[in-house]
Amino acid sequence: MGEFDIIARYFARQSGRGDVLLGVGDDAAVLDTHAGRKLVVAMDTVVEGVHFPVETDAADIGYRALAVNLSDLAAMGAEPAWMTLSLSLSRANEQWLDGFASGLFELADEYNVALVGGDTVRGPLVITVQIAGWVESDAWLTRSGAKPGDLLFVSGIPGEAAAGLAVIQRRILGGEPAAFLTHRFLRPRPRIELGRQLRTVATAAMDVSDGLLTDLKKLCAASGVGAQLNVDLLPESAAMRELFEADDGLQYALAGGDDYELLFTLPADRAAAVVSSLQLQQRVTQIGVITADTDVVCLRNGQPFRIKRAGYDHFAAGQ
Amino acid sequence: MGEFDIIARYFARQSGRGDVLLGVGDDAAVLDTHAGRKLVVAMDTVVEGVHFPVETDAADIGYRALAVNLSDLAAMGAEPAWMTLSLSLSRANEQWLDGFASGLFELADEYNVALVGGDTVRGPLVITVQIAGWVESDAWLTRSGAKPGDLLFVSGIPGEAAAGLAVIQRRILGGEPAAFLTHRFLRPRPRIELGRQLRTVATAAMDVSDGLLTDLKKLCAASGVGAQLNVDLLPESAAMRELFEADDGLQYALAGGDDYELLFTLPADRAAAVVSSLQLQQRVTQIGVITADTDVVCLRNGQPFRIKRAGYDHFAAGQ
Repeated sequence: MGEFDIIARYFARQSGRGDVLLGVGDDAAVLDTHAGRKLVVAMDTVVEGVHFPVETDAADIGYRALAVNLSDLAAMGAEPAWMTLSLSLSRANEQWLDGFASGLFELADEYNVALVGGDTVRGPLVITVQIAGWVESDAWLTRSGAKPGDLLFVSGIPGEAAAGLAVIQRRILGGEPAAFLTHRFLRPRPRIELGRQLRTVATAAMDVSDGLLTDLKKLCAASGVGAQLNVDLLPESAAMRELFEADDGLQYALAGGDDYELLFTLPADRAAAVVSSLQLQQRVTQIGVITADTDVVCLRNGQPFRIKRAGYDHFAAGQ
Repeated sequence: MGEFDIIARYFARQSGRGDVLLGVGDDAAVLDTHAGRKLVVAMDTVVEGVHFPVETDAADIGYRALAVNLSDLAAMGAEPAWMTLSLSLSRANEQWLDGFASGLFELADEYNVALVGGDTVRGPLVITVQIAGWVESDAWLTRSGAKPGDLLFVSGIPGEAAAGLAVIQRRILGGEPAAFLTHRFLRPRPRIELGRQLRTVATAAMDVSDGLLTDLKKLCAASGVGAQLNVDLLPESAAMRELFEADDGLQYALAGGDDYELLFTLPADRAAAVVSSLQLQQRVTQIGVITADTDVVCLRNGQPFRIKRAGYDHFAAGQ
């Protein structure tokens, strides 16, 4: 099976999108644009042994490679449209490709994302997806609009994905809670619908991928503000409580990474009304407040609280 | 130096493009679109040890990673606009990053391409660029429009890049010709200007990346036609003649790959007028004719001619 057979067999699918004027198979794709909307693009790469364990199921790899990209569009308040895929793999294993494509397209179909092009090369297992979508011209979400006094929210339950990775890596046998947490790591749900609803009401938003505290610091730096994060307000995970000590759970929640939840800020005077009006598929929780000074501090029982390790940085010492 | 320092120091450049509403540094980029033009996107990946030798200079790697993508836009008749970059590298070496960025931006600046986003991760050296550009709504170039009787053209001198790779890999010491061929491999010139001029006159076009004959077969398959390629008409390379036997030169020209020249077809009755009207930065040469049957044959002195090896396929047996 050659490169072109791989593309034809696994990736040259017809999509239902009328805006794909020319898709997979030529030198490039030709796409129709929308007057009055802005194009939103993001690119994320996952590497075997770095972003997912070596034995990860191919369908989960495919799903996750797209999910982490959709999460970036969610953080902008954008609606997904097209993706391109770069797949570097060591050999053309049909069973692996079949699984990978099934996971990728399961999520692509859910959000009506067309695969319009890409590249398939021989090399170590490295997958890059570029996602493109649309946002209305009047407003999109950035990291840079948080104001002192804004309330700080997070969707879902941060830490569950990192706990799931620990379950996999340490081969923790824990029945349903272990399976639930593993699924949270392998199959992150992009918060597209939440991002769309926050588009015109949140002052800032970003997705949590490198750890809640690390990402909060980035949001604050971009906005020129600080924050108090009240760890007592963090949503508790029943599954984590069954399998992990409270301190480990807190560590995962604050620094674990891989959450792909949305971290966002709302003006204090409108926050309650906004939150009660949201159509939610997962909880959102107020976990802190934005401050005028530029420090980002955690409080526990009203006292400053320091975690053991910070979030993930690919090139930081010791990682 | 962490991931975010790398991005800030090497890749967060201001571009002169007014259509970049939000660039590097947020969850995604926000881009302005053009009414009446179509978006053209392509993605190419290069892997160390597969697409370029391990000892390749970082500036050449950066230049080449963009060049191979621009070549895809050239083949569509499109004008480049933006790129995203995924950089997987084993460690943050400042000298390497400095070189890589200088080569990448040297070419990006020449074509006014803004780097608007991407990802930097730890892993084996794998670089993916997604390029996006614009083409007028009335016509773009595809592989699928060649008609029987059309004349077949190629730009530049196919084979020089493959010869240059051989010079590097076999450490051939050959003065100026060796340096010239090496440069042809390391610094392919995307034929953007040629593609723009061919946009409304060529019946089909593609870029030659996997070998002239292999790529011609793809163009013919997409168009439902065949071709006679007259190897006596292939443009000769003075540098190749100095360093290689004629038969090896022919092998490189027909099957070498890495040319990043344009292969295109013109209607026979208009071909001469079109070619004489082109503003050329490199030669274009008629090398054959499109036929109604679907065979792709090489002729030498009027006789069928078979080459030793076909073009490059990442997953074909023995490669």
